[in-house]
Amino acid sequence: MAKTEGLLFRQLFESESSTYTYLLADTNTKEAVIIEPVLETIDRDLKLIKELGLSLTVAVNTHCHADHITSTGLMKQRVAGLKSAISKFSGATADIHLTEGDNIPFGRHSLTVKETPGHTDGCITLVTGDQSMAFTGDALLIRGCGRTDFQQGCAKKLYHSVHEKIFTLPDECLIYPAHDYLGQTVSTVGEERKYNPRLTKSMEEFVEIMNNLNLPKPKKIDISVPANLVCGVHSI
Amino acid sequence: MAKTEGLLFRQLFESESSTYTYLLADTNTKEAVIIEPVLETIDRDLKLIKELGLSLTVAVNTHCHADHITSTGLMKQRVAGLKSAISKFSGATADIHLTEGDNIPFGRHSLTVKETPGHTDGCITLVTGDQSMAFTGDALLIRGCGRTDFQQGCAKKLYHSVHEKIFTLPDECLIYPAHDYLGQTVSTVGEERKYNPRLTKSMEEFVEIMNNLNLPKPKKIDISVPANLVCGVHSI
Repeated sequence: MAKTEGLLFRQLFESESSTYTYLLADTNTKEAVIIEPVLETIDRDLKLIKELGLSLTVAVNTHCHADHITSTGLMKQRVAGLKSAISKFSGATADIHLTEGDNIPFGRHSLTVKETPGHTDGCITLVTGDQSMAFTGDALLIRGCGRTDFQQGCAKKLYHSVHEKIFTLPDECLIYPAHDYLGQTVSTVGEERKYNPRLTKSMEEFVEIMNNLNLPKPKKIDISVPANLVCGVHSI
Repeated sequence: MAKTEGLLFRQLFESESSTYTYLLADTNTKEAVIIEPVLETIDRDLKLIKELGLSLTVAVNTHCHADHITSTGLMKQRVAGLKSAISKFSGATADIHLTEGDNIPFGRHSLTVKETPGHTDGCITLVTGDQSMAFTGDALLIRGCGRTDFQQGCAKKLYHSVHEKIFTLPDECLIYPAHDYLGQTVSTVGEERKYNPRLTKSMEEFVEIMNNLNLPKPKKIDISVPANLVCGVHSI
């Protein structure tokens, strides 16, 4: 288990798109960051934030999602001073455009940006200051990874991102992905290095696997991507 | 966040019945306990236990569930030496019949039994040695509680159980319930004492609420309860 002192942490699930939303806050200053907020669950999330007495400062997406619409834009309308953040390479509008090494501070804590493209060009992984937790978006899933057959997807790039930016974190670092479809909530770097059925393969084998998944087109891609390029359906 | 040193902890979800299964282990000795294992997810759970190199010693249910079938019996067939455990007052057969104050040890850690009847007569809450985590079954859910209109249910009894056995734990104690239907994964004693819409009421108001829920009969109750009285569909 993560042992970060003074960190409030909540993992929340949106069942239609199987998306995990994460809320992190400093227990003293109450400054909070939300990762991957989903439109359908905005009321649940804002109610919890209010009950916990948190002051939400940044809403960050690990990439421009194709399977759900972010609540970031609407949240900005409902939370005074809230800033949106996404990778500079996502092509999306936002208050903060993130690049490698950037920090998102909240009280004594912060999240550091690692660029992990491959699922999309603008994919990032967010790592806590003590490297005890990594929010990997769709770059690395539990025993899986995001697909690479749309939105600038590139299997070779994804393989390098995971091996160079995520698998180099400590073995005990907890992996919190943007999705899980089997009811799993968390993994570790050590486990994925050992048991990820795709990323334990050679790069050539990985590319072969990723190029032959034959997955159906995400149901919501035609509405989600244009909406998420402007922080959801609502303008920023 | 829980800070128990040397504790491996996993929360797993079964989506049909919205049940949370919990896996706890000593990171040194690898002795492990599973709480509320579900029949449908036995392969996922045993695969994870194997990958993590754990030695599963006890499978415990917080009560005789009405909404899903436990995998305890089948797990006993597949894991040598595994013992089943449930409350003495559940009426169910098991290797270990638990009562107030009993301990379920796993390496340096243990779970202490608190009897919390009301949803059923045989409901227990399991609390870690350092009181940082409580597995409340259906006695206390996140901003809710289990129904009290079947299986010996008694609203008055549930009210006393939660107030005397759970709300007396430290405010920061994490609450891990057997179910959640809104994508919430965890709460705390402090939060539920403050925001639980039912249990913050007077006992009279609580009884009134619980007696007027008008919930439909659980779909699986006629197969689940008889099966769970013998550790699931498979004999122990």
